[in-house]
This record gives sequence, structure tokens and C-alpha cells, in this order.
Amino acid sequence: MNTITQQLAALGHTLPAVKAPAANYLSYTLHDNLLFVAGQIGRPGAARSVVVGAGLSAEAARQEAEIAALGVLAIINAVTDGDMQRVVQVQRLGVFIAATADFDGHSAIANGASDLMVAVLGERGRHARTAIGVASLPTGAAVEVDAIVRLQPVTA
Amino acid sequence: MNTITQQLAALGHTLPAVKAPAANYLSYTLHDNLLFVAGQIGRPGAARSVVVGAGLSAEAARQEAEIAALGVLAIINAVTDGDMQRVVQVQRLGVFIAATADFDGHSAIANGASDLMVAVLGERGRHARTAIGVASLPTGAAVEVDAIVRLQPVTA
Amino acid sequence: MNTITQQLAALGHTLPAVKAPAANYLSYTLHDNLLFVAGQIGRPGAARSVVVGAGLSAEAARQEAEIAALGVLAIINAVTDGDMQRVVQVQRLGVFIAATADFDGHSAIANGASDLMVAVLGERGRHARTAIGVASLPTGAAVEVDAIVRLQPVTA
Repeated sequence: MNTITQQLAALGHTLPAVKAPAANYLSYTLHDNLLFVAGQIGRPGAARSVVVGAGLSAEAARQEAEIAALGVLAIINAVTDGDMQRVVQVQRLGVFIAATADFDGHSAIANGASDLMVAVLGERGRHARTAIGVASLPTGAAVEVDAIVRLQPVTA
Repeated sequence: MNTITQQLAALGHTLPAVKAPAANYLSYTLHDNLLFVAGQIGRPGAARSVVVGAGLSAEAARQEAEIAALGVLAIINAVTDGDMQRVVQVQRLGVFIAATADFDGHSAIANGASDLMVAVLGERGRHARTAIGVASLPTGAAVEVDAIVRLQPVTA
Repeated sequence: MNTITQQLAALGHTLPAVKAPAANYLSYTLHDNLLFVAGQIGRPGAARSVVVGAGLSAEAARQEAEIAALGVLAIINAVTDGDMQRVVQVQRLGVFIAATADFDGHSAIANGASDLMVAVLGERGRHARTAIGVASLPTGAAVEVDAIVRLQPVTA
């Protein structure tokens, strides 16, 4: 079985532990095969050195998007026991980037998340995406990613 | 029957009237048991005195999140005739906070919404959450909250 | 048959071509009759002259919202082969407006998108809406719109 963990390892990534929610909410909800993954962030404080449009490296911001997407994948992995066959498709990815008013390169940064989803999940990882530049993010993160994922019905 | 109104009253809250949408849209849509609640805001103009990160009280902002969540609960109440048994789960809560670029305390403010959902709806109120800091909100509100809620099928 | 294209023509609009996604994602995903439309933007660079709250014309921004909504309609048209009967309802519209911190007129601008959806799709176009003011958008657009649409099951 080709698992999410194996795919990540082949790409040089280690699946992070699923973080306990920072507050009074859940990492995910799942009903009728529709999985909602809570917003996952890159590194706390990263926006201080990586705030987009204010002297940051776009590559550094792209890595923050990748870190946030790793958090999303960790939750998908936990929900599916790592069985990628249970993922029908990532239906939607929301990518929120801490950015200045005059920044316009959100797409390339958001690709840090999108490319990882596709590299790990293949066609199942392709998604409709909404990327926007926000004022700030929890813990001073530079990027936050959430997801809506269609799963296979569990068969008895 | 333990209703949403009764739970709110026990917590010292009064259920607000469902506000007519401020524009050409609906307060909610419901199909296949998936309820989408339109963005509900705290008090108009609150961002002027409560804009997060610019000398506001975090507690005041938390209350704005609570007010916005009350608007969401009012809509859930209207759709379900107050019958909490019809709520399977709040699948996702979006919390949008008017904030400065260097603010990082979004989670505590968003808890004003999350805590209320759980206090009123119990386990059914637990949700995946995405909280972000935005530039500004309609009518100068400090916080906006929207929701996706899974309901029980209506039985004949 | 009254098609989306015909309705748009009657309103004086031309349906734009579906844009290829600017990056590694899809224009839409569709499973179990739930269509997720990726964020569609107004004109690149429009935020420079139309950034809301910083000397723009609200009417110009409203037109940007309309352009973004045309992009959403182009995708709905492609998915349904223009057959509006296949749209059960636009369940949710997200409207993201590049705005300053003290701007408060988001609703009127977002109506540029909402009004078009209803003018073209009628009651099927009515939607729950979340409108927020963001720091910036991809390519310097002034407005971005995404959608979740409930479609009829395809019958054999």
C-alpha cells in the first residue's frame, strides 16, 4: 500500500504530528464523506521575517505554505489511516497569506501548498483553490491553509 | 425539549432576531442537509474602537466574536425551529477578525465564537475552524463569523 | 432552453472564456453534486487604481466584483453545458475585497457579484454570502469571488 507517509518520505518530508487545536475547536469534522480540515499554520512568528511584500523572500513564504499544507496532510493521514485510496479528491484548498497591500505574487506562494498536495496525493490532490492576502494570522504565522476533502464512504 | 433559546437564556444571552441580509443575498442556504450560514457580524463600527492590535482590548474583541456567533445561532435556531437534535454538527466555523499586521492573538478572540457554539450546542457545536486577520469588515465590524452546519435529514 | 449565455447576453454581458488556473490547481471540483469553484479575480492590477478606501470609486470596485462573478459563471456554464436547470442553488459566495482598514462599504461592492448571480440564475442564484476586506489579492486584483454550488444529479 502506498501511504501518505511513504509518499511524503519519498519527497523528503516527515509527517508532523497532528497538532492539538490551539483553542476550543477540532482539527477536523467528518460527515457524509465530507472532511473539513481546520486552518493549519506555518511556523509561529514567521510573518515577522517573511511578511510578503515587506522585504521577504518569496521562497521562504512558499516554504511556509508547504509547512501549513503538511499540517493538512497530517490530518488527512490520521483520518484515513494513511490510506490514500480513501481520498476521492481534495475539493477545495483555502490559502491565506500575510501580505502587504501592494503585494501581487500570492499564486506562487500558494503553490507551496498546492504542489505538495498534488505531489503526495496525485490526481486526488488536485483542488479548487482560493488564495488571498490577509492582514495577519494566528501566532504571527505567514501562511495558513485549510481544506475540504471528499472521502470514500467507509465500507463494512 | 432543550432548545437553543433555552440554552442561550441559561447562559445569560438573548437570541437576536435574524437580521435581514444587508444586500442581495440570503441569510442561509440548505440542501442535502448541509446548511451554509452567511457571514454574521458583530456591532457596526466596532472596529473603530476595537481594531485588534491598535490599542484595543482583546476582551472587547472577544465579545464581538460572541455577538457575531449569536447571529449564526439565531439562523440555526430559525432553520431548525430551535430543535438542537436537528443539528448533527457545526462542521466549519470561519472567523474573520479586523486586525493589524503585527497582531498574533486571533485564537483567543475567535474563541468568543467557538466557546459560545459549544456552550449552546454541546458536542454538536464543536467545529473545524479557520481564523484569520482581515483588513476590514462590512459596516466597520470588528469580527465576522460564518458557518457550515450538518443537519439531520427531515423525516416525514 | 434558456441558457446562462443567453441570460448574460440579455444583460449585455459576454461570457468570458474559462481561464486556465494561474497555478497548480483546478478551476473547479465536483463530487456528490457539490461544485467548488476556485477563486476568480477581477482585472489584474485593478487594486492599484481601485483599492477600496484609498481614493477609489465604489462603482469601479463594484464592476470588478461583477467581472470576478462573470468568471464564476463561466465555470458554472462549462460544468453544466449552459443548462441552468442543472443548478439547484448557489449555496455560498465568498467575496474578497482589497480594502483599507477604515473602509466599511464592502456590502455594496460585493453586490456587484451577488446581483449578477441573481440576474443570470434567478432564484437559483441566491446565496449565502461572506464578504470581507483583505490586504491584497493575486495579480493585484481588487476583488476575488469563489462559490459553492449545488447541482442536480446527472440522470442517465
